[in-house]
Amino acid sequence: MLKDFEKKKREDKEALSAETKTLHSRLLGQQQLLRDAKLPVVVLIEGWAAAGKGSLIKELISEIDPRFYNVVSPVIIPENDERYPFLYQYFKAIPENGKITFLDSGWMESAVQKFLRHEITKAEYKRRIRQVNEFERQLRDSGYLILKIFLHIDKEEQFERLKGLAEAPETEWRVNSEDLWQHKEYKRFTSAYDEFMKITSDAAPWNILDGKRRKTAVRDALKLLVDRIDRGLDEGKYIGNPFEEKMALKKMPRLSEVDLSLTIDEEDYKAELKRLQTRLTELHNIIYRKKIPVILCYEGWDAAGKGGNIRRVAYPLDPRGFDVHPIASPLPHELNRHFLWRFWTRLPKTGHICIFDRTWYGRVMVERLEGFCGEKDWKRAYNEINEFERMLTDWGAVVLKFWIHIDKETQLARFTERENTPEKRWKITDEDWRNREKWDMYEPAIDEMLQKTSTKNAPWYIIESNDKKYARIRTLKIIVKALEKACDENFSRIMDK
Amino acid sequence: MLKDFEKKKREDKEALSAETKTLHSRLLGQQQLLRDAKLPVVVLIEGWAAAGKGSLIKELISEIDPRFYNVVSPVIIPENDERYPFLYQYFKAIPENGKITFLDSGWMESAVQKFLRHEITKAEYKRRIRQVNEFERQLRDSGYLILKIFLHIDKEEQFERLKGLAEAPETEWRVNSEDLWQHKEYKRFTSAYDEFMKITSDAAPWNILDGKRRKTAVRDALKLLVDRIDRGLDEGKYIGNPFEEKMALKKMPRLSEVDLSLTIDEEDYKAELKRLQTRLTELHNIIYRKKIPVILCYEGWDAAGKGGNIRRVAYPLDPRGFDVHPIASPLPHELNRHFLWRFWTRLPKTGHICIFDRTWYGRVMVERLEGFCGEKDWKRAYNEINEFERMLTDWGAVVLKFWIHIDKETQLARFTERENTPEKRWKITDEDWRNREKWDMYEPAIDEMLQKTSTKNAPWYIIESNDKKYARIRTLKIIVKALEKACDENFSRIMDK
Repeated sequence: MLKDFEKKKREDKEALSAETKTLHSRLLGQQQLLRDAKLPVVVLIEGWAAAGKGSLIKELISEIDPRFYNVVSPVIIPENDERYPFLYQYFKAIPENGKITFLDSGWMESAVQKFLRHEITKAEYKRRIRQVNEFERQLRDSGYLILKIFLHIDKEEQFERLKGLAEAPETEWRVNSEDLWQHKEYKRFTSAYDEFMKITSDAAPWNILDGKRRKTAVRDALKLLVDRIDRGLDEGKYIGNPFEEKMALKKMPRLSEVDLSLTIDEEDYKAELKRLQTRLTELHNIIYRKKIPVILCYEGWDAAGKGGNIRRVAYPLDPRGFDVHPIASPLPHELNRHFLWRFWTRLPKTGHICIFDRTWYGRVMVERLEGFCGEKDWKRAYNEINEFERMLTDWGAVVLKFWIHIDKETQLARFTERENTPEKRWKITDEDWRNREKWDMYEPAIDEMLQKTSTKNAPWYIIESNDKKYARIRTLKIIVKALEKACDENFSRIMDK
Repeated sequence: MLKDFEKKKREDKEALSAETKTLHSRLLGQQQLLRDAKLPVVVLIEGWAAAGKGSLIKELISEIDPRFYNVVSPVIIPENDERYPFLYQYFKAIPENGKITFLDSGWMESAVQKFLRHEITKAEYKRRIRQVNEFERQLRDSGYLILKIFLHIDKEEQFERLKGLAEAPETEWRVNSEDLWQHKEYKRFTSAYDEFMKITSDAAPWNILDGKRRKTAVRDALKLLVDRIDRGLDEGKYIGNPFEEKMALKKMPRLSEVDLSLTIDEEDYKAELKRLQTRLTELHNIIYRKKIPVILCYEGWDAAGKGGNIRRVAYPLDPRGFDVHPIASPLPHELNRHFLWRFWTRLPKTGHICIFDRTWYGRVMVERLEGFCGEKDWKRAYNEINEFERMLTDWGAVVLKFWIHIDKETQLARFTERENTPEKRWKITDEDWRNREKWDMYEPAIDEMLQKTSTKNAPWYIIESNDKKYARIRTLKIIVKALEKACDENFSRIMDK
């Protein structure tokens, strides 16, 4: 009897080992297919402290090509963690097409732990859960394969493991106070994890694995991953359908309805410019101290006066506290990721101002009209953008968007002047003339964009810029007013609302 | 009399203002010429606390196009500052070709302040000065225009300004304890700044401006900048001459002398692999705690077995503590900077291990042989690389470089096997066959590289890899030995040596 039992046990062990080996080699083969299919993969490993997340990842990657994956362990640098939006570090970590990112704990652990420790309010926790769902859906909709695993061990097992780690001098440092606290609060964590998994399974389901049986967990995780990739390869790149979430929108006029005859006289301009710039310097100081992030977005027709407008806004700011991000065509490593990645990675720290000279709205203008993305992509983008901006304003950011507007005649006059002025000639290229010919194609797209993305929290302002000076004063006024309001609100990002 | 004096004063003021205006518009025009000439510019503004560095930069940028410059205020995040080499954040900040970076204090302030505060030893301070000189020379030699300005105010003026700032509620927060300490130690700072400027004027001279006279300082700084750029445009992109610094080198054999018949039998391989990997896991723990950075560099012939070798080294490591950086052709934004920029920005934190799968040695191999850089560039690179690696080992890093070596016949056998094995076919491309034809051109270049860059502090190891298993064991042994030595040395980066 016992001999048979032993034999069976040995056979099972051998079978497990053989199965794991096969899966390893399948995964290695899949890496190449992923590259061919340009499919990116996100593998999130969450679970209890000491459940073996690190070791599991180590096994998952042990046989694959290091050139095409990346392991990310979001280390909490308090300075950075508090100074960027919740999802910042996770969005930053998403892989390029054809590659795999393994996350050694991520958005679940961060949200749950902060909530249980009362570092964020219930309301903020709920917002974060919504953001997680939006984040995962956005990734899925742009073709990311997502695999989420929760590595489970019971309280007794956790105790044994933490004890084992703490007692050996080489591993003692691995046990930190958060781990011990989690162990103490095992029950509260259990219900929080449970709840979290229940309500974040829409875009990608959770898979719970038994962390106690290490080798089985490795085999099962490999199997989940290989199956997920197989299915992804089989179905081809998933492209999400456009959808429309109800968000509070501000009614916008059509561009053709805008009164472009507005002007300002030279004397008023000078006085107002000085007054507003002085006030902006003061407000920048307050914003810096209150740690309010500010994001100013500029879009507009060629030669509408974006550059000069930005310069007038930037001039009174402390150069240590602001950045201007000129946005050109995406670089290859940007093009190979979710279209918002290059904007997420350029977000300002709290207390800083950043000015985007052209923005993520390229998605629904040039990328739409020149066919750089598919129809579903740009149609879906309105909501993705609204969600992105809501994450920013939820974080506490002031987000203002300016459409610098002129009419066709004014553009022609400015183009001609640029061509006739040697110092300005570099500002005008053949491409500008070609774009000009597409004015009538662009205008309805811009109208649509303004209608669909002028949310209450991140509104659009159409700036009448036939008179550039009028436009500058108007922009400055809007900025000053918005910053005054933000400074008054006794701002606190997370705990107060 | 007094009336004439007043008149003269008014005229001077108007002249100053007119001159400044002209300089502003010349600088704006130069931005375009810089882009055409692909010249990058670094402007370093150092000076006393409250001397007006921020305001000066604000004026310098006030009229230029924000798309083509960048202001960097190296904020000291203690976590980051201590965990990367001294020059890390400055190298990271260098501009792309055609753009300008303004630094609001930089390597001078950082070095001097840490030295006077006894946060680094005299010896480390001297090393940092040497590193600064090497850094500036390397930038100059690859075509960067460098302008260095020191903004000076006397002790009384500094007192007034700090008092003014501290007394106004909006600016009070700007005065920090470092500023007050500097004021107290004004005399010591004076001689330290003086000395620093004297010995760091080789690649780019210092310019001292009077911070008391703000408007004159702006005009003078603009003039220095415009003149520097004019001269740069006039002379064209500077390309530094190759030079040879005496560094302690290890004698290396020629590749043709290497005994490739070495092998290991299967049983020994398994036992040794297990023993070495177990030891490496232990060492990784110690290294993490002692905060020793480790940089492992892999180069070698195609199909020499780099990938498999790296996997055996990576397997026992904690995935949270290491990264593999596969190095392919540079992306456009990398190509537009100093060739070492993309490696500087990929350095590991202290306590972490990073593995480069191909490295900066591409400069003296593929870039040299395919003509991707000029002859002076690759000839100069030997020393630039030696200096770079010395900065790493001075910082406390373990730097090991492996040339994974096989002979031509073995490569042919492996290529053929790859072509005949469906799962491996993706590993072999036409380019591999083309590269193979260039073997005899590459071999002498590699021999030269090994001779010229095998320094005592960052040695090369030629790994005999006709038997891949032998190669893996040999590499692991070298790594284990080097890490044991580093752990024994009671490592402390800055203060102890």
